[in-house]
Amino acid sequence: MEGSQVSNSHPYVPRDLVLPGYVPCFLSQSAILVPYGIASLLVFSLVWIFSGRLKKTKLDRLLMCWWAFTGLTHIILEGYFAFSPKFYQDKTGWYLAEVWKEYSKGDSRYVGRDAGVVSVEGITAVLEGPASLLAVYAIATGKSYRYILQFSVCLGQLYGVIVYFATAFLEGDNFAVNMFYYYYYYVLANSFWIVIPTLISIRCWRKICAAVQGQGKTKVR
Amino acid sequence: MEGSQVSNSHPYVPRDLVLPGYVPCFLSQSAILVPYGIASLLVFSLVWIFSGRLKKTKLDRLLMCWWAFTGLTHIILEGYFAFSPKFYQDKTGWYLAEVWKEYSKGDSRYVGRDAGVVSVEGITAVLEGPASLLAVYAIATGKSYRYILQFSVCLGQLYGVIVYFATAFLEGDNFAVNMFYYYYYYVLANSFWIVIPTLISIRCWRKICAAVQGQGKTKVR
Repeated sequence: MEGSQVSNSHPYVPRDLVLPGYVPCFLSQSAILVPYGIASLLVFSLVWIFSGRLKKTKLDRLLMCWWAFTGLTHIILEGYFAFSPKFYQDKTGWYLAEVWKEYSKGDSRYVGRDAGVVSVEGITAVLEGPASLLAVYAIATGKSYRYILQFSVCLGQLYGVIVYFATAFLEGDNFAVNMFYYYYYYVLANSFWIVIPTLISIRCWRKICAAVQGQGKTKVR
Repeated sequence: MEGSQVSNSHPYVPRDLVLPGYVPCFLSQSAILVPYGIASLLVFSLVWIFSGRLKKTKLDRLLMCWWAFTGLTHIILEGYFAFSPKFYQDKTGWYLAEVWKEYSKGDSRYVGRDAGVVSVEGITAVLEGPASLLAVYAIATGKSYRYILQFSVCLGQLYGVIVYFATAFLEGDNFAVNMFYYYYYYVLANSFWIVIPTLISIRCWRKICAAVQGQGKTKVR
């Protein structure tokens, strides 16, 4: 692919990617990242403050913050991507389209509509997004399904990340504009959805095993 | 793609799929399916007979049969596929290569080495296969992790099947030689890994909720 002289008016790699009607980013990198950062902090703060009125441990409150943040990210950001195949043609400077034009510098399979990426993002937006928000409620109200629900979403996130990285590797791993975008967008941004779901799923696994073990001591066939 | 006049000496669809060094199937359809059926029945029978010596319910014994069967299928059949990119060039009539040459009539993405299919099959073979066999042991010995382990494998299988069908749909759903292979191989064969994991995961979800609920009545912070 490299070295080909196809002239395409987009910044993405591989250079021979064809994007008819591509409209460049209107917003700068900071104009895209800062609002996302502020909105995320706002979600965290609001959930932290309101959860203070519940009789919950600090860990449970922190988990509620995470589930609210990740759920809204899944539904709003990833939901927009999954159902907007032509986002790169957006002429209005619409924030969500700009987010994915920018992120595609780290992984052009987004703008190129790779079937694996769209499938994983679709599952994430439609199933894991709402399930994450349900996890906030389940923790807040102490539902008996709170651990298995959190575990389910974590496993889905981890499966999605593995498919995401594995397909990129198998397809040649040449989708980033340069090393900066490769490491900050493709590697670093996604690594949060490896580390945090891994930690939460281990905790839920242990909680569930303890509960099943405890039940076995009283009754159980 | 249809109607293109690319001459390729293979039976798969799309016709312009390029498979250098393709060697046709040696075995007939029945010579491939019957041994798999007999081996599966053998696994089921052996696990059923030996599990009879344990104090287990019939449902638990049936689950052990399923996990042994699906685990061996994942490790042997899907494991071979995941790590044999050139299986279609096999000249020896080796059974596992023949299986995937035959199955590719229902989904040519196997012989075409689609990144999504290879990723899902790799995860299935490497993670879900051994985990399925561990589930046989966990049920047999009544481990406290028996439900969450079964649930994890089921969720992985379901996620894999969704990615499998979603990517095919997004890529045009034109990978079967004809409707017979489409419905029997692509739809019917995979549907077992939708129905059974769904049923098992619902059961595990309920068992886990009951255990967590029960624990909540005694202690739990």
